Amino acid sequence: MDFTISEKMHVILEMMDEFVNKELIPLEPEFLNREFVDLLPVLEEKRRLVRQMELWAPNHPKELGGMGLDLVEHALVSEVLGRTPIGHYVFNCQAPDAGNIEILHKYGTAAQKDRYLGPLVAGRIRSCFSMTEVDMPGSNPVMMETTAEKDGDDYVINGQKWYTTSADGAAVAIVMAVTNPEASPYLRASMILVPTDTPGFNLVRNIPVMGHRGTDYASHAEILYQNCRVPRENLLGPEGHGFVIAQDRLGPGRIHHCMRWIGIAQRAFDLMCRRANTRKISPDGRTLGSKQIIQAWIAESAADIQAARLMTLHAAWKIEKEGAKAARHEISFIKFVVANTLQRVVDRALQVHGGLGMTDDTVLAYFFRHERAARIYDGADEVHKMSVARHILRAHAEKG
Amino acid sequence: MDFTISEKMHVILEMMDEFVNKELIPLEPEFLNREFVDLLPVLEEKRRLVRQMELWAPNHPKELGGMGLDLVEHALVSEVLGRTPIGHYVFNCQAPDAGNIEILHKYGTAAQKDRYLGPLVAGRIRSCFSMTEVDMPGSNPVMMETTAEKDGDDYVINGQKWYTTSADGAAVAIVMAVTNPEASPYLRASMILVPTDTPGFNLVRNIPVMGHRGTDYASHAEILYQNCRVPRENLLGPEGHGFVIAQDRLGPGRIHHCMRWIGIAQRAFDLMCRRANTRKISPDGRTLGSKQIIQAWIAESAADIQAARLMTLHAAWKIEKEGAKAARHEISFIKFVVANTLQRVVDRALQVHGGLGMTDDTVLAYFFRHERAARIYDGADEVHKMSVARHILRAHAEKG
Amino acid sequence: MDFTISEKMHVILEMMDEFVNKELIPLEPEFLNREFVDLLPVLEEKRRLVRQMELWAPNHPKELGGMGLDLVEHALVSEVLGRTPIGHYVFNCQAPDAGNIEILHKYGTAAQKDRYLGPLVAGRIRSCFSMTEVDMPGSNPVMMETTAEKDGDDYVINGQKWYTTSADGAAVAIVMAVTNPEASPYLRASMILVPTDTPGFNLVRNIPVMGHRGTDYASHAEILYQNCRVPRENLLGPEGHGFVIAQDRLGPGRIHHCMRWIGIAQRAFDLMCRRANTRKISPDGRTLGSKQIIQAWIAESAADIQAARLMTLHAAWKIEKEGAKAARHEISFIKFVVANTLQRVVDRALQVHGGLGMTDDTVLAYFFRHERAARIYDGADEVHKMSVARHILRAHAEKG
Amino acid sequence: MDFTISEKMHVILEMMDEFVNKELIPLEPEFLNREFVDLLPVLEEKRRLVRQMELWAPNHPKELGGMGLDLVEHALVSEVLGRTPIGHYVFNCQAPDAGNIEILHKYGTAAQKDRYLGPLVAGRIRSCFSMTEVDMPGSNPVMMETTAEKDGDDYVINGQKWYTTSADGAAVAIVMAVTNPEASPYLRASMILVPTDTPGFNLVRNIPVMGHRGTDYASHAEILYQNCRVPRENLLGPEGHGFVIAQDRLGPGRIHHCMRWIGIAQRAFDLMCRRANTRKISPDGRTLGSKQIIQAWIAESAADIQAARLMTLHAAWKIEKEGAKAARHEISFIKFVVANTLQRVVDRALQVHGGLGMTDDTVLAYFFRHERAARIYDGADEVHKMSVARHILRAHAEKG
Repeated sequence: MDFTISEKMHVILEMMDEFVNKELIPLEPEFLNREFVDLLPVLEEKRRLVRQMELWAPNHPKELGGMGLDLVEHALVSEVLGRTPIGHYVFNCQAPDAGNIEILHKYGTAAQKDRYLGPLVAGRIRSCFSMTEVDMPGSNPVMMETTAEKDGDDYVINGQKWYTTSADGAAVAIVMAVTNPEASPYLRASMILVPTDTPGFNLVRNIPVMGHRGTDYASHAEILYQNCRVPRENLLGPEGHGFVIAQDRLGPGRIHHCMRWIGIAQRAFDLMCRRANTRKISPDGRTLGSKQIIQAWIAESAADIQAARLMTLHAAWKIEKEGAKAARHEISFIKFVVANTLQRVVDRALQVHGGLGMTDDTVLAYFFRHERAARIYDGADEVHKMSVARHILRAHAEKG
Repeated sequence: MDFTISEKMHVILEMMDEFVNKELIPLEPEFLNREFVDLLPVLEEKRRLVRQMELWAPNHPKELGGMGLDLVEHALVSEVLGRTPIGHYVFNCQAPDAGNIEILHKYGTAAQKDRYLGPLVAGRIRSCFSMTEVDMPGSNPVMMETTAEKDGDDYVINGQKWYTTSADGAAVAIVMAVTNPEASPYLRASMILVPTDTPGFNLVRNIPVMGHRGTDYASHAEILYQNCRVPRENLLGPEGHGFVIAQDRLGPGRIHHCMRWIGIAQRAFDLMCRRANTRKISPDGRTLGSKQIIQAWIAESAADIQAARLMTLHAAWKIEKEGAKAARHEISFIKFVVANTLQRVVDRALQVHGGLGMTDDTVLAYFFRHERAARIYDGADEVHKMSVARHILRAHAEKG
Repeated sequence: MDFTISEKMHVILEMMDEFVNKELIPLEPEFLNREFVDLLPVLEEKRRLVRQMELWAPNHPKELGGMGLDLVEHALVSEVLGRTPIGHYVFNCQAPDAGNIEILHKYGTAAQKDRYLGPLVAGRIRSCFSMTEVDMPGSNPVMMETTAEKDGDDYVINGQKWYTTSADGAAVAIVMAVTNPEASPYLRASMILVPTDTPGFNLVRNIPVMGHRGTDYASHAEILYQNCRVPRENLLGPEGHGFVIAQDRLGPGRIHHCMRWIGIAQRAFDLMCRRANTRKISPDGRTLGSKQIIQAWIAESAADIQAARLMTLHAAWKIEKEGAKAARHEISFIKFVVANTLQRVVDRALQVHGGLGMTDDTVLAYFFRHERAARIYDGADEVHKMSVARHILRAHAEKG
Repeated sequence: MDFTISEKMHVILEMMDEFVNKELIPLEPEFLNREFVDLLPVLEEKRRLVRQMELWAPNHPKELGGMGLDLVEHALVSEVLGRTPIGHYVFNCQAPDAGNIEILHKYGTAAQKDRYLGPLVAGRIRSCFSMTEVDMPGSNPVMMETTAEKDGDDYVINGQKWYTTSADGAAVAIVMAVTNPEASPYLRASMILVPTDTPGFNLVRNIPVMGHRGTDYASHAEILYQNCRVPRENLLGPEGHGFVIAQDRLGPGRIHHCMRWIGIAQRAFDLMCRRANTRKISPDGRTLGSKQIIQAWIAESAADIQAARLMTLHAAWKIEKEGAKAARHEISFIKFVVANTLQRVVDRALQVHGGLGMTDDTVLAYFFRHERAARIYDGADEVHKMSVARHILRAHAEKG
């Protein structure tokens, strides 16, 4: 058992940390008070710097132009970049592109790779992932209503999706649609690449989320597919394997998200400590940090973050070593443990800031409202708890 | 011991409840997606209906044009109106005007009443309360920096305030400023009426709170007082009695807020039940409500709300019967108990709605982000806990 | 709405409180370090005093020799007596006799009343209630295995019961047994009076609970009924109505238990305050009570107890006014709310006592281990949550 | 970063696990229902087997007759042995002997080692650690009242200690007493070896803890030192270095305790799973494990245990690698995190067992009541939180 972080990673993480502090955090007031689309030029500037520093696309293979880090290494990166809402975007390892790149790399045809994979890794285009449906529980694959019917050499897609994150401004969508309605539940749907300028791909609206519709990358769209026709060579992976591939996408994606959440928690923790150390509460100069309740929150938050970190790094290590299936418990655990740690720490940090915490003069209110989703997406906490518990109970019964 | 609600109140509450359901809740999508200032005409329409129904200003004395309800009665009203974010405004019992009207009624001179009290109760003007300062802990009166110096027949006010709620569009501010710096801490500040068109009253900005600057009533301003000069007859109540009067304002105000929060919790609870009853989670028609975890949340939320209600009604009854001082424990208890109940119930309701809960397609996301402030304003939970505990411990030591 | 406690009750409660403090709490060291059976003489002495003061059997009808208090009044009594583990016993309103007396009074024949009711109310004999079975979930009446077969003029009872509280030393058991196996589930079982000296009534053991088997009143027995034969006139109430009567017994019993738990919580709270005020933590004389974390526990505990009290008194009032059925939500709420309040407050009080809290030099360790059962008996918290939630959801669906 | 457990340790842990399951858990009913002193013969039998298997004293140096495991390795051992309350004793790595052996090994003179160290490691004698005083907070070294005055070649010890664990039956006590009252606070006390048959060493009583006084190893004594005279060569380590040495003893001791607690939590978890899988709740054979609330507890418990394990192993690794001082945050974190995990898991397991959980027919009730101390000894949770938070805040302020 050895918890050492390699010298190589130390260097990388320090460079990234410094970049986040010096180049990105100063942009947050603009991020918080303007539209994302208006920030594109300045973000592109930062992305250029990242490329120059050869820190671009840390999670993607070297041959595609990334840094080729393994899962544990990228987990550590994701933590550092997670400290600011624009970190992953600027380093081009943001969801949903990161996951889309992974599956394109693994399942894409040469033509698909030519057209999409290169530009995505280079950061010249963006993509989205169009799976969730408004009235359907994401946890039940049988309940998907979007269909892709074969018609000659084409698929004709009909249906309504929502929470198609970052569709606004994306060049291509990976759409999940039922292609084989008679197959067994988990083999009914396929993934299909749909350029967003295809007729019948209708972005109905950016959904107002926590008071904001957002723009460009920072948005969640409702999409109406109306006789949206794409050639059959746009099928990504084998027909009917949509859920299999989606599952593939989830394990490492969970690690990325969880470490990003830990980065957020770390940031909130730092802000909480700074506030505790500087906020005077009496004329004699005593600060908030002299208060035991604040101290208890700091100790508990530090311990919570430590637990979340070790669990996520361990899960990443186990995925690398034994595969996602062997690590299924660990992957479920971190979903609900880390999401709750994140929200608890942000909530405490906000409380320590008092009225200031409610404002957009710090990044905390943004984290508070938008990262509330962490307990929901990729399977609500409750779904993961049930599923892991049933698996544990079965295994226990077999062991006797 | 008798928990009966009078027949008179039953009738009033039912009328109000119906009005909220039929007239106000349908306005929420506009409230959530547009600026408050744009809603003024339609809200004025609703206010006219309320006046016609003689449900106007339920908490204010009959002689001023209100319904003259006592504190327990108005508590029940506040619960019903709290179910929608625009309820109190439409019935003209919204903070901060409600508290301002109370102290004007109690401490105002005839001239002050003529100029402000009548129009406020009639709903023709609005007011704001300018006490909080950005770098000062609200809980420590010694740390106020805004001053009002006497100069001839005038006060000249200098200082910076923030969280002056609803200043945008208000006709008058009640400003708390140090008039007697040499007095004992709680007798240093006074309340002064400052018309918002007075030179030197500078509304610097509506503070961005949870992603929104807001407008008109739905805003929190930062105000810079720069040699802001008002005649000495604008003093409200005795000089140096600012904190005494503010304290007066807090007891009943706490009841109003807490019952409003309970109304919000009730609304969130109803939405949670509806969602649980209607959201299908499998093709065979089973709903979310068949899930034990959801059931546990519903039972716990119902019990939490019940506890919060009884505590608040009991505190209101005790204030009425024995005065705010005798009820100081009860008033502190409800501050932290009800605020936490509110947030717990809203959080669960949001979670039950999944991705939908994050959007502005329901009112839950609004409650989630804006009512986060409930644990902060009027003294953070922690301040109340410390203060009530020290009082209990002292009393216990004396009792022996 | 009126929370006033009557003058009459004030006087009664004060007398009882003084008695508890002066006569009973000083007996606790013996109670904690010796067997209950050894305390019988001194307890009988105290009971004699209670009779003299005319505070005997407060919850039982005057015509039977009790004080005839109504449910709300006795709730207040139960709180005061609950402050010590021997309070209810000394005032002869202890479970399970209290509930047994109620149903004997309501359903007993003249002969049954002659033989058992009088002596029970007078405190000359004790009784037990033999319903729970070791492998059966109490919440499912269908799963009862004990049978009472008719044979001539007798019932012949066979089966195994456990948690027959206070069977050791009792004169009579009320046994729940299946008499009508073919009836609908809730009409299968009956209650039958079984004198404990009946052949075939075998007290197998006092079950070791939390390290103690206990004796006499303070014990929980396992009973084996082996061809235990009693005359059919020992049937209590109509045949097949066992669950109906048991249900009857539960509503008021819940109030008694919950108020007793609140009394325990109050006692723990007092001990916590005393410890906080007296425990020095530094040579300069500062006490534990100067610590914010302790203060937070005190404030939260006081608020928790207040909530629990109001909920229980309200439930009692509703049972009195509208009947147990109308109050079913309230009765379920208090089951889980008060049990958890009790345990949280006792846990905090123990923690404030440090190592001393673990010892039997205070009563806290007793409360901690034995009152852990409060979340289990009369239906585990979880059972109540499910049941009340399903009822709420159905009502909500109907209301639309 | 590598979480692999070595092949060597796999073999050892499996052997121990099997031994615990086959030889020790079957002894638990006797342990739970009889006095420890009565079990000594059978336990000695088991100890002989452990010696034969060469699994004796796993944490002690090979040259002393132990297995010489490092801290991470012994952590894993402590987890396995912790699954039963008699595990550590049978393998001779129980507190307080383990810590006493460590400091004797490090600080003892040759004569001291001859007389005590050998017999302790061999398990022929037992020892105790006499530091805690009844009215003194353990966290404040200034407040120690026991003194050891030099008189000729002797120390004369006077004072009262309690919670001298396992004094009953011990051959020797390591006593902490003030030898240098004028020194700076942390240099006032020394450790002195006192054979328990020394005149003036008076074992007043075994303190009743959670209803039991206990015997022999399973007891906590109150000791009165009355002119208890021992030669000055009984000083252990340098004079005045009592607290320094005690501190030394704490770091690795914390690891042992925490991993033992995790073993308990694991055991409770296993019992919970078994119960969930086997307890029928309806005639159609559905089990408790089909209930979502139980599933949620299982998932949360598994995740909690995983977090606790990783944090403790990481702390052990850091102590080994960088020393206890560098690992001080980690050592404090696990104190409160693991103690709370333990109690949460045991509480849930008990609840899943219903009434059975309250009895001594399983080991859960024992864990519930006795391991409540885990949040208290070696510094209450709250003390650790304050201390670690203040350290974090200072470091944060320095970092800027």
